[in-house]
Amino acid sequence: MTTAGNVIKCKAAVAWAPKQPLSIEDIEVAPPKAHEVRVKMVATGICRSDDHVLSGSISSVKFPVILGHEGAGIVESVGPGVRNIKPGDKVITLFQPQCGECRNCLDPKSNMCLKSDIGKHTGMMLDNSSRFTCKGRLIQHFVHTSTFTEYTVLDEMAVAKIQDDAPLDKVCLISCGFSTGYGSALNTAKVKQGSTCAVFGLGGVGLSVVIGCKVAGAAKIIGVDTNSDKFAKAKEVGATECINPKHYKEPIHKVLERLTEGGLDYSFECIGNTSVMASALLSTNYSCGTSVIVGVAPSAAELNLNPMEILTGRTLKGAIFGGWKGRDCVPKLVADFMAKKFELDGLISHRLPLQKINEGFDLLHKGESLRTVLYFC
Amino acid sequence: MTTAGNVIKCKAAVAWAPKQPLSIEDIEVAPPKAHEVRVKMVATGICRSDDHVLSGSISSVKFPVILGHEGAGIVESVGPGVRNIKPGDKVITLFQPQCGECRNCLDPKSNMCLKSDIGKHTGMMLDNSSRFTCKGRLIQHFVHTSTFTEYTVLDEMAVAKIQDDAPLDKVCLISCGFSTGYGSALNTAKVKQGSTCAVFGLGGVGLSVVIGCKVAGAAKIIGVDTNSDKFAKAKEVGATECINPKHYKEPIHKVLERLTEGGLDYSFECIGNTSVMASALLSTNYSCGTSVIVGVAPSAAELNLNPMEILTGRTLKGAIFGGWKGRDCVPKLVADFMAKKFELDGLISHRLPLQKINEGFDLLHKGESLRTVLYFC
Repeated sequence: MTTAGNVIKCKAAVAWAPKQPLSIEDIEVAPPKAHEVRVKMVATGICRSDDHVLSGSISSVKFPVILGHEGAGIVESVGPGVRNIKPGDKVITLFQPQCGECRNCLDPKSNMCLKSDIGKHTGMMLDNSSRFTCKGRLIQHFVHTSTFTEYTVLDEMAVAKIQDDAPLDKVCLISCGFSTGYGSALNTAKVKQGSTCAVFGLGGVGLSVVIGCKVAGAAKIIGVDTNSDKFAKAKEVGATECINPKHYKEPIHKVLERLTEGGLDYSFECIGNTSVMASALLSTNYSCGTSVIVGVAPSAAELNLNPMEILTGRTLKGAIFGGWKGRDCVPKLVADFMAKKFELDGLISHRLPLQKINEGFDLLHKGESLRTVLYFC
Repeated sequence: MTTAGNVIKCKAAVAWAPKQPLSIEDIEVAPPKAHEVRVKMVATGICRSDDHVLSGSISSVKFPVILGHEGAGIVESVGPGVRNIKPGDKVITLFQPQCGECRNCLDPKSNMCLKSDIGKHTGMMLDNSSRFTCKGRLIQHFVHTSTFTEYTVLDEMAVAKIQDDAPLDKVCLISCGFSTGYGSALNTAKVKQGSTCAVFGLGGVGLSVVIGCKVAGAAKIIGVDTNSDKFAKAKEVGATECINPKHYKEPIHKVLERLTEGGLDYSFECIGNTSVMASALLSTNYSCGTSVIVGVAPSAAELNLNPMEILTGRTLKGAIFGGWKGRDCVPKLVADFMAKKFELDGLISHRLPLQKINEGFDLLHKGESLRTVLYFC
């Protein structure tokens, strides 16, 4: 076990204010305090939630801030009291932490650790202070992670130790996008072997749902997207067929009902659009279908349902981070990846150095890329 | 096995048109055809769904019709091909039938037999004809049951044979109201031992949910109603405490969140009011709570939700007839009643002869009665 070292000076992408490009700056990263870990980042994905903060649609996040939450790296040093993590360990960052002690951590049904900073957005470590400064100013943390920096400091609860042979430039996706989709199929819907599934929205998270349905042994996995260019990739990762709502005059839930003789066993909304959520629900069998909300809708969005659609026997549910408890499950997900239970390469469309992070956000805005993974030179 | 006899002349309460009192008439009941059963009714409850038809809010039901669907009686004769039911058998009517052969009957997750007449409202037996006439006119059947008559004819799929020693004047509640509430707790929510539950609306169905939660071993069962007069009965059948939303300034979901340190494990809406459904959902733990819709809302009602309320980990679900498959489960429910697993007396507030059926509907409209059970002189 190594105690904390000195302040590290390094490069980071600082968000000084909303609706402005990120700025590559020299920052100072203080050493980890008790129960904290300082990590040298190796890879981090650019996720739509980071963009939601930058665009101002998650307005409670304070600036300046170092964003990024889908990261993997190597432990540089640890603070006092850290027992199970040591310098040199490979780790994955957990925006949804697992303190292991709160009501929700103790409940097998919940993965929403009460110490999570999602929604609260204090922008601080657990001890209510920051480890980042830049040009004499305090810089905020983001949901206990902040991965758009060469070095970051994390509370121990927000770190999952993974096996030494894992390729960090791939398994960083397990930190957010992949696990969210994959877990929605396996944990939230609990897709059964031989069942019928439809995935609305074939971006990275949607494709991860497809992978989850395939691993669960679904007989039919129907990809649904208004952009047919996405169908080839969806079929590559497991979709058995794909349909484009633009190609039908009737509502897409009617098409899906016909394709599955009475409605799907499971549907997944991976866009964050409430009309699509309503359609995904209606696509399921009226007497026993389950629809899972995976996409994050804008804060003011309203989902309007006829309660009879539920009363006849449907289930509507959702989960953050695919229902996984981070420290318990992420190491197992990495092990499953290493055992080739699923592939991650297909989900990564671009690789860029941290310095080109704004290009990465541009790719996201164009909507044609899958995950862009940043590396650190 | 006995084949069909002759036409029976008897009394029935005929609904000639919506929004009019029922009329006690002399009707003719034809003998049962193949796979049909003629039953001498012994007891039938008056359910709110019957009233919805009479008031015109279920507008697809055709008149004249013999309503009633919560019945128990004794088999008078059976048609050709009926194997497992014989004259003299005690039976319970199944408005939600179980043909045992359709996709839904074969799916363990579904109890919505595709041959059900709910929603379709053909008003006919399976062979598309009626067994009732009155004053030379054909009278419609209602959801394969029609229990407001001294004799009725049912398709075999709509009949559950029960044990000989069962008191029909009580177990008739297992035909609808009791099983709907009880099954919502046991089958739909799958309430776990030691969990926290709230039941919104303490009418007969709500009380049956309370009984289900108690049988499941819930640690806390909170009754919620704007009429505090209902609390004594609720506590009698198993509620551990009761609260009246009128007695609080803050929204009731906030009160329940406080009473359960973070939100309920399960909530049940037994009224059919979409605002209450939204409140019941919010009352559950944001990361793992389950809310069940039990009440039937008016056809045009809209439930408005913020999808984030689901995304954080909640589940919203529902079921018709408490998720029970009628022919498989009703005999077991009767056996459980006979074994004193639960009581039914507390759910029955009035007993009237068929001739006074309109008084029974008046009691329902006043909203202060529990179930009124009709008997046949």
